[in-house]
Amino acid sequence: MPRYFIRLAYDGSPFCGWQVQPGQSTVQGELEQALGQLLAKPVGVAGCGRTDTGVHANDYLAHIDVSDTVDTAQVTYKLNKMLHPAIGIREIFPVEGDFHARFSATARTYRYFIHAQSDPFVRDFSWHVPQELDVVTMNQAAERLLHYSDFSSFCRSGSETRTNECRVSYASWSAPEAGRLVFEITADRFLRNMVRAIVGTLIEVGRGKSSVQDFESIVEAKDRSVAGTSAKAHGLFLWSIAYPEAVYEHATTWQKA
Amino acid sequence: MPRYFIRLAYDGSPFCGWQVQPGQSTVQGELEQALGQLLAKPVGVAGCGRTDTGVHANDYLAHIDVSDTVDTAQVTYKLNKMLHPAIGIREIFPVEGDFHARFSATARTYRYFIHAQSDPFVRDFSWHVPQELDVVTMNQAAERLLHYSDFSSFCRSGSETRTNECRVSYASWSAPEAGRLVFEITADRFLRNMVRAIVGTLIEVGRGKSSVQDFESIVEAKDRSVAGTSAKAHGLFLWSIAYPEAVYEHATTWQKA
Repeated sequence: MPRYFIRLAYDGSPFCGWQVQPGQSTVQGELEQALGQLLAKPVGVAGCGRTDTGVHANDYLAHIDVSDTVDTAQVTYKLNKMLHPAIGIREIFPVEGDFHARFSATARTYRYFIHAQSDPFVRDFSWHVPQELDVVTMNQAAERLLHYSDFSSFCRSGSETRTNECRVSYASWSAPEAGRLVFEITADRFLRNMVRAIVGTLIEVGRGKSSVQDFESIVEAKDRSVAGTSAKAHGLFLWSIAYPEAVYEHATTWQKA
Repeated sequence: MPRYFIRLAYDGSPFCGWQVQPGQSTVQGELEQALGQLLAKPVGVAGCGRTDTGVHANDYLAHIDVSDTVDTAQVTYKLNKMLHPAIGIREIFPVEGDFHARFSATARTYRYFIHAQSDPFVRDFSWHVPQELDVVTMNQAAERLLHYSDFSSFCRSGSETRTNECRVSYASWSAPEAGRLVFEITADRFLRNMVRAIVGTLIEVGRGKSSVQDFESIVEAKDRSVAGTSAKAHGLFLWSIAYPEAVYEHATTWQKA
């Protein structure tokens, strides 16, 4: 059965996250419905991971298995006509062998956006934090994340995961322009709510409410109740997913890493 | 009576344009209501011009007259708390003499945004035109606008204006990145619906449906019925307003032209 990867983007505002939920509008649900209608048979869509309600995806990968080869340009065009305008299909391309959107991913990158001044044009895609933030100290704290592997302190309580181990390979704040901050973090895997809990806790460091040492103690405690409040969902983007080079072999528009 | 200029931005999506209309949510209406509540007396807000339903403003100027001097930083802060989040107050500053938000303006600049590929993040702020457009020819046609002064062909029929004369000093398309186009136009004044009618007509040139000569004939006809369909409201931004230098004397954050 031919397997295709679907590269898409979505504004998470109108959806209850990625994963299908009965009676709720989700990105996976919208995709499965449209593909089922288009291909005239039920199609299961396997995503690269879940995103929570209101979280966006700049570059999301999913795969489908179909009985016959499809005209990828035509399916892309038709899907974009049928789908909710908050979902944009960028490309559909065939993959060889058994590459899997979730299990073949080698790294995931998230970005979290913050703005200081009230701005009507970014209000759905960035968190408004009017207080002054000490970015140098926030980056000293963020750097500490690279020295730990158990992130239980930043995992939503009640989550069922085999392990809370993650390898964080990058975590840093930058200021693309005055009054704007972006936090970028890359890891092999993320726990549920992990990025928003880290951002919320780092903002407390930036506001001088806690120190780099406090931040390190929070990580070491392996206890969610000691970390800060989670940052709002609407500032968070699943930004990119890394795969082995061979996945991209038949991709045309995708920027190879 | 002290006069203050208010510099603001708005996402036009949720509003029936700038101007107060009974029973409708408008930007002027929201501002007058919030200011009236804040200053505990009725406040009239005079804008630099009208914008239609769904049109955005990157930099809009309005003025108010108040009986006593106000703490501008505090009023800015409180207004941003009270107003619909689609409106952002950037700055309030006093002006000397009788500078008027509308009548003192020497030029107005609009920008119109177009994107080729379905993109969920710009869908409220840019028009999705999937057809290929010949930008070189569109710019040859746009340049012709600088040689005319009667723009009756691009004026909504039924508009009551003393004259349809405008001096266009700049009109050009640029491509900030692949698959994105921006049209910028500056004039001393604009007729109702003028920018959207020009953009719609230029797109027909870009699609090869009409020539630069056809475009020129449309301008010369001084007849709205010969021009193309108006471009959608949500791609249009009132981008900036030019005033005599003295207006900015007490402004702090404003980028002086």
